Amino acid sequence: MSELRKVIEDRRSANNFIKGIELPKEELVEMFELLRLAPSCFNIQHAHYLVVSEENKKELLREAAFRQYKVHTASAAILVLGDKEAYKKADKIYSGMASLGILSKEEYKQIIEAINGLYEGRGVDFQRDEAIRNAALSAMMFMLIAKDKGWDTCPMIGFDPDKIREIFNIPDRYEPALLITIGKEEMKNKRLRGYRKDVKEFVSFDNFQTLDN
Amino acid sequence: MSELRKVIEDRRSANNFIKGIELPKEELVEMFELLRLAPSCFNIQHAHYLVVSEENKKELLREAAFRQYKVHTASAAILVLGDKEAYKKADKIYSGMASLGILSKEEYKQIIEAINGLYEGRGVDFQRDEAIRNAALSAMMFMLIAKDKGWDTCPMIGFDPDKIREIFNIPDRYEPALLITIGKEEMKNKRLRGYRKDVKEFVSFDNFQTLDN
Repeated sequence: MSELRKVIEDRRSANNFIKGIELPKEELVEMFELLRLAPSCFNIQHAHYLVVSEENKKELLREAAFRQYKVHTASAAILVLGDKEAYKKADKIYSGMASLGILSKEEYKQIIEAINGLYEGRGVDFQRDEAIRNAALSAMMFMLIAKDKGWDTCPMIGFDPDKIREIFNIPDRYEPALLITIGKEEMKNKRLRGYRKDVKEFVSFDNFQTLDN
Repeated sequence: MSELRKVIEDRRSANNFIKGIELPKEELVEMFELLRLAPSCFNIQHAHYLVVSEENKKELLREAAFRQYKVHTASAAILVLGDKEAYKKADKIYSGMASLGILSKEEYKQIIEAINGLYEGRGVDFQRDEAIRNAALSAMMFMLIAKDKGWDTCPMIGFDPDKIREIFNIPDRYEPALLITIGKEEMKNKRLRGYRKDVKEFVSFDNFQTLDN
């Protein structure tokens, strides 16, 4: 495995996947094994990944993604969904720690109440925000893990979420948060990395200020 | 720097910061220098970080975060904001590549049109989703970079966004997406890592399916 800095520097959003490269399922499973450690609010693990690599399904997905060529040439297109009702399964996630005595009965009860209080108290808009937010946290870690294994990715939002739901029968409960194409990038003709803001343009200390208003 | 796997395995959401530890500004700036490489939709760089380490401001922030003790003991509390109007500054981001001739005038024009088309076409709800989504992508990379430099973090959503806006005079345009506390974790009495779902519980292949309905 490479150093974090190298992985971050090497990761570039891919624009030009080499066609016809197979991404073995075993390799994907290895990536997801490590991704299990991604953080989420109260550890309720909102993210769900739908990996689409079957040719005909990937072409359907491409239709829902405004026919972007990338979806066609990528080894797989991975839909990152966020579960708006993840909090309802918190009891399952915490029951193991409770039965092992790592959490007392009282602590277990308090955690479940705090989770329900937060999600039900703030309502459906917050539940949807949380689905997107936590799916995105996980997705970033996934893209770094993929790069470290030699796979290029591109995070995409150019798709019609309703069409995607329809094609894959995705229940309302799951919010399509991001589409990640993955494959091997054709490196010749690769453009320079896009301009990045200076630190002082996107960080402020103790007082909010921005240079670009 | 450490290997990616080690950083991911070592990163744990911190619960118990050691009080009184100073996080030097230079170290933070180094972290943000690397974070510049985080991906964002069309590279428009929605994320803005407000680092709060001045004691009195951090205590005000704590008030807006339901008095959580973590905010008190952390070396800094970092508000991750997402700019809902980041797309309006796309011309600035792409003008350098245009003036260097890396982008032709026609390509430059097409990119700016595509960005405006996407963000204005999909409207304010999408702009807000994007602010949260892209801020979260960046925030995950930040937490890994911090861990790699020996700093522990905890992503938090338990705060009142309106109060936060008020305290720091944050314009409407910026959406508070996440609060990250950062410091050095007291490792004794550290709990076991919480239960993580098996890969088959959060990944499906070609057909959407979930085991937890």
